[in-house]
Amino acid sequence: MERQKYEEIKGKALALYEKAGIILTEEEKTSIEVVDFGLHNIEVTGLQLITYVNTEKVCAKELALLPNQTCPEHKHPKRDFDEGKEETFRCRYGKVYLYVEGNETETRSAHPPQGDEENYTVFHELILSPGQQYTIYPNTLHWFKSGEDGAVISEFSTKSTDESDVFTDSRIIRVPMM
Amino acid sequence: MERQKYEEIKGKALALYEKAGIILTEEEKTSIEVVDFGLHNIEVTGLQLITYVNTEKVCAKELALLPNQTCPEHKHPKRDFDEGKEETFRCRYGKVYLYVEGNETETRSAHPPQGDEENYTVFHELILSPGQQYTIYPNTLHWFKSGEDGAVISEFSTKSTDESDVFTDSRIIRVPMM
Repeated sequence: MERQKYEEIKGKALALYEKAGIILTEEEKTSIEVVDFGLHNIEVTGLQLITYVNTEKVCAKELALLPNQTCPEHKHPKRDFDEGKEETFRCRYGKVYLYVEGNETETRSAHPPQGDEENYTVFHELILSPGQQYTIYPNTLHWFKSGEDGAVISEFSTKSTDESDVFTDSRIIRVPMM
Repeated sequence: MERQKYEEIKGKALALYEKAGIILTEEEKTSIEVVDFGLHNIEVTGLQLITYVNTEKVCAKELALLPNQTCPEHKHPKRDFDEGKEETFRCRYGKVYLYVEGNETETRSAHPPQGDEENYTVFHELILSPGQQYTIYPNTLHWFKSGEDGAVISEFSTKSTDESDVFTDSRIIRVPMM
């Protein structure tokens, strides 16, 4: 059952990458990372991704979000070797509603997953359409959600160490589903 | 005339980005960097590029190569703040013939521009099709050439400081045409 769910979500992610015109190797296609953040409700809170490269200095990933899926609020704190991960999100397909620290946007276009509102605390809104991008500097709380068509986002960053991310929701464990 | 040439090359680069399914903002489209490396023979030796982001830590560019165009041999040496630029090339469209330091590949698929052979010294060949990539670590000589359809390459790297690149061809000046 878990394998079946993984395959289902993976298939949806592949369809999104295809819509974005992203060409992947067969190896990449079979090893898409599917993350439910331990909340077991992946259509609502989750993320699908491929890591192209992750050296000591530079990381590049291709993120896919299912329609109206939320990547939950977190930040990348100081690490032994730097001030924390810095990342630029570039929207390639769909629409991305990105929320970061700063002045709260009054009329917002997206909202946290229902019932999880207490785990979302930053509401400065940026809306990214294809070709638009935004850079998130270290230790800045952020979360993001796709629109009704889902989204594909290229992420350009310093070294990625997902295990050091700090989530607002204390229930969250950042491990891939499979 | 120079403006006319720039517009012509820019148009060809835009057509390549479109074939690769890369979506650009209007601002990016109008500010494509066209580089002839001071050799005044851009169809043979040159590069077109868009820099998405270039912070103190991370840089991402989208390179376009016209059909059979060569980016001349160079390396990224040690800088005040690091050991030199590290970069990963990911082919998005077309074919890329990449040459780096290492065992010389005997039967090669591409060759340096005619008449410029003396300025090319590394011949370890890597052929990148869409979805394939290669990481070049600091201070490693490399050059690359597209196939007959041209190419689009995503570059993920540490901070870019083009002025610090060292070219094998001493005639080369790394400044944009316009």
